[in-house]
Amino acid sequence: MYTDGKRLWDSVEALAEYTDAEMPFSRLPFSQMHGHARKKLEHMFRGADLEVRIDSAGNLIGRLEGAKWKDRVIMIGSHSDTVPGGGRFDGIAGILAGLELAHTLKDRGVRLEHSLEIVDFLAEEHNEFGVSCIGSRGMSGHLSSEHLTIVNDNGESLSAAIDRMGGNTIRLGDARRTDRDLHAFLELHIEQGPVLYSTDIEIGVVADVVGIRRMEVEVQGQANHAGTTPMNLRHDAMVAAADMVVAVNCEALKLDAEGKSYFVATVGRLCVSPNGANVVPGRVNFVIDARSSDDKMLERFAVACDAAFERICEERSTKYCSSVSTDSPSTRCNSRVVEAIASTCEALGASHLRMSSGAGHDAVFMGKIAPMGMLFVPSRAGISHSSEEWTEPAALHLGTEALYRTVLTLDKCRIED
Amino acid sequence: MYTDGKRLWDSVEALAEYTDAEMPFSRLPFSQMHGHARKKLEHMFRGADLEVRIDSAGNLIGRLEGAKWKDRVIMIGSHSDTVPGGGRFDGIAGILAGLELAHTLKDRGVRLEHSLEIVDFLAEEHNEFGVSCIGSRGMSGHLSSEHLTIVNDNGESLSAAIDRMGGNTIRLGDARRTDRDLHAFLELHIEQGPVLYSTDIEIGVVADVVGIRRMEVEVQGQANHAGTTPMNLRHDAMVAAADMVVAVNCEALKLDAEGKSYFVATVGRLCVSPNGANVVPGRVNFVIDARSSDDKMLERFAVACDAAFERICEERSTKYCSSVSTDSPSTRCNSRVVEAIASTCEALGASHLRMSSGAGHDAVFMGKIAPMGMLFVPSRAGISHSSEEWTEPAALHLGTEALYRTVLTLDKCRIED
Repeated sequence: MYTDGKRLWDSVEALAEYTDAEMPFSRLPFSQMHGHARKKLEHMFRGADLEVRIDSAGNLIGRLEGAKWKDRVIMIGSHSDTVPGGGRFDGIAGILAGLELAHTLKDRGVRLEHSLEIVDFLAEEHNEFGVSCIGSRGMSGHLSSEHLTIVNDNGESLSAAIDRMGGNTIRLGDARRTDRDLHAFLELHIEQGPVLYSTDIEIGVVADVVGIRRMEVEVQGQANHAGTTPMNLRHDAMVAAADMVVAVNCEALKLDAEGKSYFVATVGRLCVSPNGANVVPGRVNFVIDARSSDDKMLERFAVACDAAFERICEERSTKYCSSVSTDSPSTRCNSRVVEAIASTCEALGASHLRMSSGAGHDAVFMGKIAPMGMLFVPSRAGISHSSEEWTEPAALHLGTEALYRTVLTLDKCRIED
Repeated sequence: MYTDGKRLWDSVEALAEYTDAEMPFSRLPFSQMHGHARKKLEHMFRGADLEVRIDSAGNLIGRLEGAKWKDRVIMIGSHSDTVPGGGRFDGIAGILAGLELAHTLKDRGVRLEHSLEIVDFLAEEHNEFGVSCIGSRGMSGHLSSEHLTIVNDNGESLSAAIDRMGGNTIRLGDARRTDRDLHAFLELHIEQGPVLYSTDIEIGVVADVVGIRRMEVEVQGQANHAGTTPMNLRHDAMVAAADMVVAVNCEALKLDAEGKSYFVATVGRLCVSPNGANVVPGRVNFVIDARSSDDKMLERFAVACDAAFERICEERSTKYCSSVSTDSPSTRCNSRVVEAIASTCEALGASHLRMSSGAGHDAVFMGKIAPMGMLFVPSRAGISHSSEEWTEPAALHLGTEALYRTVLTLDKCRIED
């Protein structure tokens, strides 16, 4: 191994100190604690001889000039913010892996032909402005003037919040990058799922990031007294909704069983009205979250759900309506980058698996403007967005080593799809 | 008809004036408006030559001395309080029917052999003390010293609230009545269900009031990321709970279809945790409200649910636990009283149906100490506990006439089971 596992782990522990003491591990986007953590990162970047700046979209960037292709950048990035009560790894692991890579280059006296940039993207997690991936949106040209004028509960606009974190949104365009100056983009992230952990595989080579379709469903029945309304005169929205939840699960299992593409669907949010123990429910609202690496499967799923829901409403003397609230297509990783990561794992003797990412990442936006690839390291029991989130030091070290060696490989080759 | 439909309806309209102006029709138990309405009732009772008092449990009683059996009372009662945003009929209709009966006796110069009492039972509806049927509990000896010490959010004890409404809880025992002084108890009530309305039948002759069994169920799964957790590695508490809701409905339909006894079961309250669109639900809590005129059916239902839930949890890789929060047995109406009501309807040429009451009433407590019977009048579309609650004037008049004639019949006979 070229990278230093102890130095890497020390950096993880150092950043874990930057948390709301009462709710470990929390560095909410745009919070004071988030700012403190970035100050620490800036200091650590300088310690690896990186030249530090914050771009106009508020991204903290540490840069190492290339020997030959100064204007072509290999970029490594992830985010330092967390969800409330999140974990020690989600986001920050990818930045610290990049930092360790810079240290290793320095230790070994290796100079890359391409310039290298390590990026802490601003505010990847869901935040008070209702827009995630703010920094990577800004860098890829997906942060609109409508986004910038969104105001949070304290009356602060998103543009003011970005500027407070060191950005300069009047000149937001300066943060824009394209495939002309990006040679490749790589993100190491914890899996946030159980696949690697349950199969005991060391590294996930991400092939694609799933598309997401969210559907809001309302089931309309008739609220009535639970004691005095005979079974045959009911229009019970809860019973119809229960049938629908089972149907959603059944359709998802079928599509998943086809084995061709990643497919999951979930009813995670469901609200009953009026929700009284002695009232036949008059209305149920729920949200279906469906994700697939194959956008056509999402389409087939929606059609199948509609057919099932119509049949159910007919049987249960109820009505329903639905609308699509999110519809973002899947993103393929660059095949050359994927191959480079996979052959690196091979050479390292690390067990690895081509897999879909079921969660969104900054890499999705960066994939729109650069050849993009991702590496996953295992999450214990698949747990994430929780203080229980855990990745073994050796596992994180192995992933970081794979990242380092992939960068050396990519530095020497041309990348095209 | 002996009773006066116009006078009766005028009294309904007069009482409908006593409501929170912003939320018709509301006379919350123990509220100032509830007190005002009772003052009005007291005045109206006096107008029918009733002698008025409030007993130590806070029940407002109008009394007419009998000619022969002064110490044996035929009691007519219901309640003047309402749920928030309730209707013009639930409770008050039964008191006003009793009042009309007293007017009719006076008009016709009829003197009953038994004494007659018209009662406004205190606080039948669910209230801030979490104890319903407070007045009828007090009169039947089912209001304990534990009940009396319950304190509401304003720091007032139930005993203080009863005393404020004219009761005298230090001498609560004085309100106690028994079958030694009660010849019969009758309550006229709106059906609060759709049976009479949907079958176009004029009067419901209540045969029994259902027993209620409430079960609190908790389904335990594993909260996980909805995007990154493959279908085969999930422990989805919502999918298991949905199967259970469908199973509850299926068992209830089966028991109802046996046709021997009234049976309904409802999941009216259901809460998902953490209830996020992108999280596989880790826990679902719901309440089953099952009601039957046959207590053995409630037992069979509970056994069937347990068997189904165990199978579901096995299939869905989840666990569950459940507990019984309410278990009150069914109450049979007195058969002689039921016969008297039915023959009265027959003689009146009123279409009528023997039926179960799916809701609880003051009559349940009074049935513990007196030969008890109930008459239902139709509720439009079965709607109740709503400002939409409606009973046609002619339908209420017919029910009141049946009540009057039933009292004349019962006055002349001995009642035994």
